[in-house]
Amino acid sequence: MEYTIRSIGHVEKNDSGIYLVINPDIWEAAIHVDHFSHLIVLWWIHERDNDEDRSTLIGYPPRDKGDEASGAFACRTPLRPNPIGHTIVKLLSVDSDKKRMKIDHMDANQGSPIIDIKPYLPSSDRVDDALVAPWFEALEPRYTR
Amino acid sequence: MEYTIRSIGHVEKNDSGIYLVINPDIWEAAIHVDHFSHLIVLWWIHERDNDEDRSTLIGYPPRDKGDEASGAFACRTPLRPNPIGHTIVKLLSVDSDKKRMKIDHMDANQGSPIIDIKPYLPSSDRVDDALVAPWFEALEPRYTR
Repeated sequence: MEYTIRSIGHVEKNDSGIYLVINPDIWEAAIHVDHFSHLIVLWWIHERDNDEDRSTLIGYPPRDKGDEASGAFACRTPLRPNPIGHTIVKLLSVDSDKKRMKIDHMDANQGSPIIDIKPYLPSSDRVDDALVAPWFEALEPRYTR
Repeated sequence: MEYTIRSIGHVEKNDSGIYLVINPDIWEAAIHVDHFSHLIVLWWIHERDNDEDRSTLIGYPPRDKGDEASGAFACRTPLRPNPIGHTIVKLLSVDSDKKRMKIDHMDANQGSPIIDIKPYLPSSDRVDDALVAPWFEALEPRYTR
């Protein structure tokens, strides 16, 4: 089965910072987003939206520089059946005039389409005791106190 | 802009448990998923894939029973421009013969299409000091030790 998704905005990176720019006609969906410190950003890895990359089922983590093959569902390779990027960001400020949110970092490239934004809820999204594959064990948590 | 996503499997709930059933032709993408204790599951909220629900920009959290309007990007309402569900689950076991993963819980209904599975990585996905809207503050983290 196939489904259709639409961009709800795009990633803007410039000298003043990194932004989630929301399409003006749906800015209403951002009401109260400033009640949250962190957001889940789902974005479209448009550079990888082609038949070859989307039929690649194997990656080599971390960052495709490892030497052990892993399935696309066991790593974060951008080459996957549905090229959806998933990034947790810290929300720095919301600009209702420019209809954009300033965030602390984003691994998506400039201009990447955003497809959804959700508030980060510790009750459902935080895992304190997660176990990971050996090749990820040395990575430092980004948002740990 | 519009993009096409495909189901990579579906949610199965029966008397023996809850499963992510993967399409046989892409089972290879599950190699090494058993190295991880928790997964990020992205699924398609197919019941809400219609024009009316997808143009609803406001929800009433928590669980659409609250009394304060929030934008769809500031709550987890299934009525949103792209009806993508996001659930963190604990992986209980992997069955290569039946091409399915047993998990501990899933808010998607039986038969819901799965569109992506990613390993949960504390280095990028765990936030210890997240602030949330007042109406979420009383919720207990599900996976805290």
